[in-house]
Amino acid sequence: MEPVGIFDSIKVLMDEVETRFYKELQPRTNSLADLIAHISKYKGKRLRPALVLLSGKCLGGIAPQHIDLAVVVEMVHTATLVHDDIIDEASMRRHVESVNSKWGREISILFGDYLFSRGFTILSALDSQVATLLLSQTVNVMSEGELIQLQRRYDIGLSENDYFDIIERKTASLCAASCRLGATFAGANRKVSDILSNYGLKIGIAFQIVDDCLDVMGTEEEIGKSLNTDIQKGKLTLPLIRLVNQLPRNKLETARELIFQHDAKETKNAIIELLTEHDAVEYAFNTAKKIIKQAQEEIAPLPDSPYKTTLMELADFIVTRRS
Amino acid sequence: MEPVGIFDSIKVLMDEVETRFYKELQPRTNSLADLIAHISKYKGKRLRPALVLLSGKCLGGIAPQHIDLAVVVEMVHTATLVHDDIIDEASMRRHVESVNSKWGREISILFGDYLFSRGFTILSALDSQVATLLLSQTVNVMSEGELIQLQRRYDIGLSENDYFDIIERKTASLCAASCRLGATFAGANRKVSDILSNYGLKIGIAFQIVDDCLDVMGTEEEIGKSLNTDIQKGKLTLPLIRLVNQLPRNKLETARELIFQHDAKETKNAIIELLTEHDAVEYAFNTAKKIIKQAQEEIAPLPDSPYKTTLMELADFIVTRRS
Repeated sequence: MEPVGIFDSIKVLMDEVETRFYKELQPRTNSLADLIAHISKYKGKRLRPALVLLSGKCLGGIAPQHIDLAVVVEMVHTATLVHDDIIDEASMRRHVESVNSKWGREISILFGDYLFSRGFTILSALDSQVATLLLSQTVNVMSEGELIQLQRRYDIGLSENDYFDIIERKTASLCAASCRLGATFAGANRKVSDILSNYGLKIGIAFQIVDDCLDVMGTEEEIGKSLNTDIQKGKLTLPLIRLVNQLPRNKLETARELIFQHDAKETKNAIIELLTEHDAVEYAFNTAKKIIKQAQEEIAPLPDSPYKTTLMELADFIVTRRS
Repeated sequence: MEPVGIFDSIKVLMDEVETRFYKELQPRTNSLADLIAHISKYKGKRLRPALVLLSGKCLGGIAPQHIDLAVVVEMVHTATLVHDDIIDEASMRRHVESVNSKWGREISILFGDYLFSRGFTILSALDSQVATLLLSQTVNVMSEGELIQLQRRYDIGLSENDYFDIIERKTASLCAASCRLGATFAGANRKVSDILSNYGLKIGIAFQIVDDCLDVMGTEEEIGKSLNTDIQKGKLTLPLIRLVNQLPRNKLETARELIFQHDAKETKNAIIELLTEHDAVEYAFNTAKKIIKQAQEEIAPLPDSPYKTTLMELADFIVTRRS
């Protein structure tokens, strides 16, 4: 669901990004027309482009390059969603069928590669290689994060620190990069760019924690993507790690079996009961709220502006959203 | 199999590329160590790095950037191999198990993304965006080529022109880009860079035709990768297109059934018999030889040098290789 109203201060720019996004994807061959028409139905939150634009606006100004960068971060994000949905065998994404479900994994792999490379072509038209460097490193770190997560599936020994390392890589790194690019291309110095990047990293971490809570507790109708994939795929997320840490040793094996049963739908209620009993989802939400507060403290020293206010509100939205 | 002796004129540089390739992939996390150790067993022909270096040498000189570019084209190529092996469900690659077979498709998808992004990080350290632009466009065209091929599986109406369009995109474009980069970074003007790029495009097309012939006729032991995947996956390649074009209308349906039977191993001999009867593989080899001759004519006007001689010999090697 879009964060209604929150991006009003940059509405015109966000519309420009939206138009450019699809213009850049105009297919040269028929082979891609259906795929691109399909992802144009993906109405995402557009969080990452908003971070580029708000960070720029916050620090004085938006250059035409900010639109390019906003388009590219959304394209890179879409590419990772297309690849992730193959891995998670997710059938729904942003309220419509996933590319994987509609066209199969072979096409999804190639379409993801297409989106990544298209993004880097846009970056190659910029004056400097700053964005190419940062975003190629970010995609690298994101794929590493997903790899570590895969390798540690069904590993009940995964600690909170391991979990934070994974989500920082796979999700928060692109939010941090979006903020850093917005700041840097507005002429911010290193120190100020670091502040924005830290803000982005923190809201990215909180965003993923909330996502992981909603994966356990939400409904697909509200959230618009396949849920319970984490449990089905053996991913230990913060609520489950908390649960495991709270359980006495002699109950661990039972919990493990319950969590990783193949048909998670049948055992879902039992798991939710356990999570509730141990306040594990509440714990995860509270952790996210603490991190959001830190994010807001990061940018507090910046000069006041409507855009800084939006960044503050956006941080709150991340932990209050229920879809 | 390495083209023994052919790259002697650039041996020192090729060794430098090999060392740099693995140095650039040094993993920061344990998660990647096994994967990288595995692909270090992939002893490929290193055709694309050789094209970068020979094109540069041919036109006067090699800059340190040529080593970077040679490393990147091989990394991009390796990324596409890792993704292609998922699509083809190939179990063998370069005489060892494919990443897909050893680690499964989820890890292969992410490892491919890791390799692509690592390549672009190396490019982002260069002085200009020329290489970022060309290689991102090339990856884009390659993924489009593979997409078109997928969409036209089991399509007996695929023409020779359609086939050439597909292989130009999926294979030849990276060979052309390798030559163009080698030339451009040696200071060649547009006209000379175009000559090298055309040479690369043509040997790339011929290379793929020969690959497709070997997929039908070769043995896995000699060639070191999974074979007959084209027929199993419904890909019509030049020998089969020729066969289809030669058959009378009333035999088409029988041929179609034979070609696309699910267990191709059983019908393999029947197909080879049909191909032989219609000289279809010979036709494909002859087509490749003609294109190689055109490639050699492209570079004939360049000043003579040991490196030009190597490019001439390399072209011959491509159609005489049997593995």
